Amino acid sequence: AEEAAVRAQAETVRRLKQDKADPDEIAKEVAKLLDMKAQLGADEGKQKFVLKTPKGTRDFGPKEMAIRERAFKAIISCFKRHGAEVIDTPVFELKETLTGKYGEDSKLIYDLKDQGGELLSLRYDLTVPFARYLAMNKITNMKRYHVAKVYRRDSPAMTRGRYREFYQCDFDIAGQFDPMIPDAECLKIVHEILSDLQLGDFVIKVNDRRILDGMFAVCGVPDSKFRTICSSVDKLDKVPWEEVRSEMVGEKGLSPEAADRIGEYVQLHGGLELIERLLQDPKLSQNKLAKEGLGDMKLLFEYLSLFGITEKISFDLSLARGLDYYTGVIFEAVLLQQEKEHGEEAVSVGSVAGGGRYDGLVGMFDPKGRKVPCVGVSIGIERIFSILEQRLEASEEKVRTTETQVLVASAQKKLLEERLKLISELWDAGIKAEMLYKKNPKLLNQLQYCEETGIPLVAIVGEQELKDGVVKLRIVATREEVNVRRESLVEEIRIRTSQC
Amino acid sequence: AEEAAVRAQAETVRRLKQDKADPDEIAKEVAKLLDMKAQLGADEGKQKFVLKTPKGTRDFGPKEMAIRERAFKAIISCFKRHGAEVIDTPVFELKETLTGKYGEDSKLIYDLKDQGGELLSLRYDLTVPFARYLAMNKITNMKRYHVAKVYRRDSPAMTRGRYREFYQCDFDIAGQFDPMIPDAECLKIVHEILSDLQLGDFVIKVNDRRILDGMFAVCGVPDSKFRTICSSVDKLDKVPWEEVRSEMVGEKGLSPEAADRIGEYVQLHGGLELIERLLQDPKLSQNKLAKEGLGDMKLLFEYLSLFGITEKISFDLSLARGLDYYTGVIFEAVLLQQEKEHGEEAVSVGSVAGGGRYDGLVGMFDPKGRKVPCVGVSIGIERIFSILEQRLEASEEKVRTTETQVLVASAQKKLLEERLKLISELWDAGIKAEMLYKKNPKLLNQLQYCEETGIPLVAIVGEQELKDGVVKLRIVATREEVNVRRESLVEEIRIRTSQC
Repeated sequence: AEEAAVRAQAETVRRLKQDKADPDEIAKEVAKLLDMKAQLGADEGKQKFVLKTPKGTRDFGPKEMAIRERAFKAIISCFKRHGAEVIDTPVFELKETLTGKYGEDSKLIYDLKDQGGELLSLRYDLTVPFARYLAMNKITNMKRYHVAKVYRRDSPAMTRGRYREFYQCDFDIAGQFDPMIPDAECLKIVHEILSDLQLGDFVIKVNDRRILDGMFAVCGVPDSKFRTICSSVDKLDKVPWEEVRSEMVGEKGLSPEAADRIGEYVQLHGGLELIERLLQDPKLSQNKLAKEGLGDMKLLFEYLSLFGITEKISFDLSLARGLDYYTGVIFEAVLLQQEKEHGEEAVSVGSVAGGGRYDGLVGMFDPKGRKVPCVGVSIGIERIFSILEQRLEASEEKVRTTETQVLVASAQKKLLEERLKLISELWDAGIKAEMLYKKNPKLLNQLQYCEETGIPLVAIVGEQELKDGVVKLRIVATREEVNVRRESLVEEIRIRTSQC
Repeated sequence: AEEAAVRAQAETVRRLKQDKADPDEIAKEVAKLLDMKAQLGADEGKQKFVLKTPKGTRDFGPKEMAIRERAFKAIISCFKRHGAEVIDTPVFELKETLTGKYGEDSKLIYDLKDQGGELLSLRYDLTVPFARYLAMNKITNMKRYHVAKVYRRDSPAMTRGRYREFYQCDFDIAGQFDPMIPDAECLKIVHEILSDLQLGDFVIKVNDRRILDGMFAVCGVPDSKFRTICSSVDKLDKVPWEEVRSEMVGEKGLSPEAADRIGEYVQLHGGLELIERLLQDPKLSQNKLAKEGLGDMKLLFEYLSLFGITEKISFDLSLARGLDYYTGVIFEAVLLQQEKEHGEEAVSVGSVAGGGRYDGLVGMFDPKGRKVPCVGVSIGIERIFSILEQRLEASEEKVRTTETQVLVASAQKKLLEERLKLISELWDAGIKAEMLYKKNPKLLNQLQYCEETGIPLVAIVGEQELKDGVVKLRIVATREEVNVRRESLVEEIRIRTSQC
């Protein structure tokens, strides 16, 4: 009976995939299917050990690592181009350090088991550890990046690149500066990285927590409901306004009139002209917070126009962002064009970068509450991986997973010692070299190994070559063979692989 | 009264340091002092939040990161030189995956709190996750490296580079090959890395689990006591034989005669001649395991002599290594020369690399028990960091923590827009550029910033330069200034910083 249920569920999943249903829904049904299968397995043999990585995590094999390294390289060189230093912090923090920083999302924090000693939690992002680092070291001024894994006990949707263990690539600027200059640089960075990675068209939505709060105030939202109404607004990128409205009124007890007023604002998005218009808005312009936020937004757009990137920027009143700690500008980059080359299924990705200003966070750690204003951006690399992986698969490009320049081989038997001597010379000269771990490998197998792994050269030792003081160098691609004097071999390999 | 106790403890620590006492003892007393201080703090204000990283962990600031990156670069380029691919695995594994792999050390594993769902533990090393990866993906053949953090709830001794969160740099060769060829390569790798990092003189101790087990058998140790006697032998690098002997006889119930026979063997160390001698040993040569191990050890030494590294290798019968999973060759690299330059305190470091053969581990994960023989090496990078950090501090070398090539500056007021335009051009051309986040910074402050952070060039915009279509380029080191046409600026910066 249970097996029948599993089969029915498998059919449901198959149908949803065929109908190209919403990826989240598919992921949910797949998860259900896996659970049912696991259940079935557990019942079959109680002791059965499941050989897998934890839910929501994955291994990176050599191919995935090659893609990951490419993406990291693009991102990190951008961070360095902007003069950032780099830091690293522990993967876990004192539980207290994370307490009260994430609002409703706190339930997603992984705690460590109390095994005596301190209570610890895995880091949820890199922002709070950065703020802790600044406060602890009394640093008031720093531009740093940090690329590391963070942990969230969220429901994973791995096909969409949503994991429980995932990398964040963060760049932040801490310090008291003239308004909007560091904020503009963060947006420039997002623009540079997304352009460099060639992920297709994108838009960076921008808003300001002060504009949101001002808007809530003039719409008649009571102060106590700002945060919860804000998190309703945050859902607007996934669900239509009607649903968000009914949540505000039904679940959160907002008056229908207030909700409708909010509804009018959050549908607005545009550029400088929208900012100008809202600065003239009879209600908003009377609110101190909103006015401040709009004034800064105008300044931000001026700077972004000097950077030549306003085309990709959208001032969007529906952008709210979930986290509690933002105090000013907030932003989120979304890919517009789906990958649909070669008839592949579309990868729905959503936001690939986000960030904003958090002027109060460092002060929460300082015994005297001294504030260090900060603004930063986080690149959500897993979603970018998903796209790059899928694209690579479609392109059938062959990715090399090693950098080996030469295989040390022999054509006859009993030459293991000679191969060991030669490879040792090459390693000591800094040449990347491999050999097969066999006493008497066949030449064909050695050549095949080069073909499979993309090694461009073979250095072949044989009786005659040893006598003549030469090594036979074979170029795998052309099958050309040349005798090279042993003392020139290193130089010859360097020249022949310098383009690789 | 408590404060007086803290002061007394502080005095103890000061005295021990002055007397250059054993670093472990100092560390213990320092820990006690910190506990007392924390206690005092906690009593003072109950709610007081302690701003710190978890016990046994630390942040890496920009300077430490610069050192870390240097060490990683040396290690990873060696791994790549030997043709390794790279993988990454999650920071936690199913608890079951780690169960039964580490013997007595299992108590040091960090478990995650049961928050519903799977039971998870932080990885204890990179070897067990690698074996899990091979079994899960049915890989029978792989040469890979993995550089990542591992976690052990050990008593930290941070001055000696012993942490609860620390990096391991692992290189392993999996597959069925002719004997001792991959094993010899692992030792060559340790030799290359320790030479490259210039950590001073070192020795790589080598032994074989089969020789140890054979030795225990011929000395009259009952089979059931092999592991526990092995872990006594493992302590010989820290405590004298007399103590180890009394542990064997007193705590572990071994007969005094057996212990004495062991005592004779474990004091032996040497090279090929010792192997030859033991192959003639009337008792050992009768034992199948010992004979196998000694035969392979002889082969290993032949290969190592072809690599030209036997000078640093010591066949040492006292080397045991703690972990349960080793089945053949084991080794450990130890630094001999302490850092004592510039009158600095000596850093006592102990082992900086270790590894061995583990032919049974992958089979423990395979449903059908199919074995994949493996051998690997792990570089203990934290101890190496400690040495490099201390050395750098002593040398007073100034380490740059950014790679910025040019600061975009202005000599007059009201030129923020022009600086933003110029820096944007530079970023888009791939130049690493910074500017101060001020509307009207003073030229002196801008030049000072370059001095402090080591930026070699300043691109100065001014009214006159803008009119003339040039930028004034200042070379910080020489204070020389040249006017460069705006369209040649990128090229000029590239040329002038190409040596950096």
